[in-house]
Amino acid sequence: MLAEPAVGYPDVLRRCVERYLEGLRFARDEATAGLEEAMRYSLLAGGKRIRPVLALATARALGREADSVLALAGAIELIHTYSLIHDDLPAMDDDELRRGRPTCHVAFGEDVAILAGDGLYAEAFRLILTEQPGEPSDVLAAVAELAAATGVGGMVGGQYIDVAGSGPGGAEGLRHLHEMKTGRLIGASVECVCLVHGMREPQIGPFREFSRELGVLFQIVDDILDVTGTGAALGKAPGTDERHGKHTYVSEFGLAGARELALASQRKARGALALAAPAGAPELEQITDFIATRRS
Amino acid sequence: MLAEPAVGYPDVLRRCVERYLEGLRFARDEATAGLEEAMRYSLLAGGKRIRPVLALATARALGREADSVLALAGAIELIHTYSLIHDDLPAMDDDELRRGRPTCHVAFGEDVAILAGDGLYAEAFRLILTEQPGEPSDVLAAVAELAAATGVGGMVGGQYIDVAGSGPGGAEGLRHLHEMKTGRLIGASVECVCLVHGMREPQIGPFREFSRELGVLFQIVDDILDVTGTGAALGKAPGTDERHGKHTYVSEFGLAGARELALASQRKARGALALAAPAGAPELEQITDFIATRRS
Repeated sequence: MLAEPAVGYPDVLRRCVERYLEGLRFARDEATAGLEEAMRYSLLAGGKRIRPVLALATARALGREADSVLALAGAIELIHTYSLIHDDLPAMDDDELRRGRPTCHVAFGEDVAILAGDGLYAEAFRLILTEQPGEPSDVLAAVAELAAATGVGGMVGGQYIDVAGSGPGGAEGLRHLHEMKTGRLIGASVECVCLVHGMREPQIGPFREFSRELGVLFQIVDDILDVTGTGAALGKAPGTDERHGKHTYVSEFGLAGARELALASQRKARGALALAAPAGAPELEQITDFIATRRS
Repeated sequence: MLAEPAVGYPDVLRRCVERYLEGLRFARDEATAGLEEAMRYSLLAGGKRIRPVLALATARALGREADSVLALAGAIELIHTYSLIHDDLPAMDDDELRRGRPTCHVAFGEDVAILAGDGLYAEAFRLILTEQPGEPSDVLAAVAELAAATGVGGMVGGQYIDVAGSGPGGAEGLRHLHEMKTGRLIGASVECVCLVHGMREPQIGPFREFSRELGVLFQIVDDILDVTGTGAALGKAPGTDERHGKHTYVSEFGLAGARELALASQRKARGALALAAPAGAPELEQITDFIATRRS
């Protein structure tokens, strides 16, 4: 990898996200308090908050205040959490541990976990649509991108290809799968901030280049960590991909090949970022290097 | 009941909805064609299309073209379909038949059914946000109401109270549960059309009165039909509520009591409608009477 681990991370932005998420409430009566508990259990399980931190860092790269996109950033983390809850279900990846704790369905039951995911997704849209400042047409464009990024042409479609094994296979198929499953939401964390701040085509193009490559980089490293990571660092059992017979960057290219790909992807993302933010964007650079060198 | 069954139904509007839904495609590549198949299997299973027909009829009651809200109406039916798919899952109501056909998870597997529901919800938002005409601020208001109606304070919260048995019980608790689980989305089918056509408080109030009462009426009749309906007419096994030990209008008030409540609710809805649309709204009146007297 380019850099050794423990590169910097924009912890100020991360704390800002964490505080915001902790302040979110979803239930308006006693009867749904248990649902809120399950939603917050998964939402507040920690993690690096890469997507919302990316959103805040993008706002700063555009010369705006980080907290101008807090609602959008929070919504994206709600959506990410919903996807983890549903992915962990027995009918899907059947994972019992996530970030070192029992997964949502283990802790609250499968029915509540399904509804906690559904609820987080709905509340994510509600959050942006009621709390995100901006011109209505800009907010609309951002929410439309978020819906597209999480629909059949994005996250959910990618997850389907993963469970159904319906992709074309090979390196191209693998890249396409992950662009949909992981890349689009990571990309949306950057693109939606551009949209909500009134940026449109073609100016948005270089940011999209950057953010989509970042999604690819994230997934390559994820596949590597599933093989090389320890359970303690990952907060879940490693080797899950192999047990599920999943097609990964490691199964396709071997560990050394995947590491080379990660390095190339990191360089490509940094290059795209230099074009998108020629004056420099230190926090986005930090996040890129962090994603490339993370240990969990 | 006020009227005998086989009262009129706005079939022109229904055919309009049906054609629109049939034209919807979600997959953009071969790899997600199987997911689209599962989504369309459930979406195109027939039914009276009460929610989208209600949306079109509301547009006409406001003096607008029915097809001015087709995207919104279609999105609401996508959301309704998603909720049925998830409700039918083994961890939830565990139903194997829906509209006379195997439920989505029986036909396609539980993993695909979860994703088909998730995908329908995402595509619903994408549909309105990209296809629904209107002022951006009006479309935003409508989508925000739709998110609220389907979140923890609405459909998903109601479903949670139902599966967790966490409601306060009694007649009040029952009404509250159903206002959330069923009523809010039926209400949104009317309210979102008002919003998208630029109507705001307090003008929207009488329409909300009407539509929320319609939701209550719908649920009372649903509970009655679960006891009195035949499997052939319902397209699913009757008596499901009793088997699940569910708290229903029939378990609370007995069959005769529930029928009286339905009659009172029908009168109340018609009264509210007369206030909302003093010049008359024949299609909304038809839908109200249809909901009160339906046999399936």
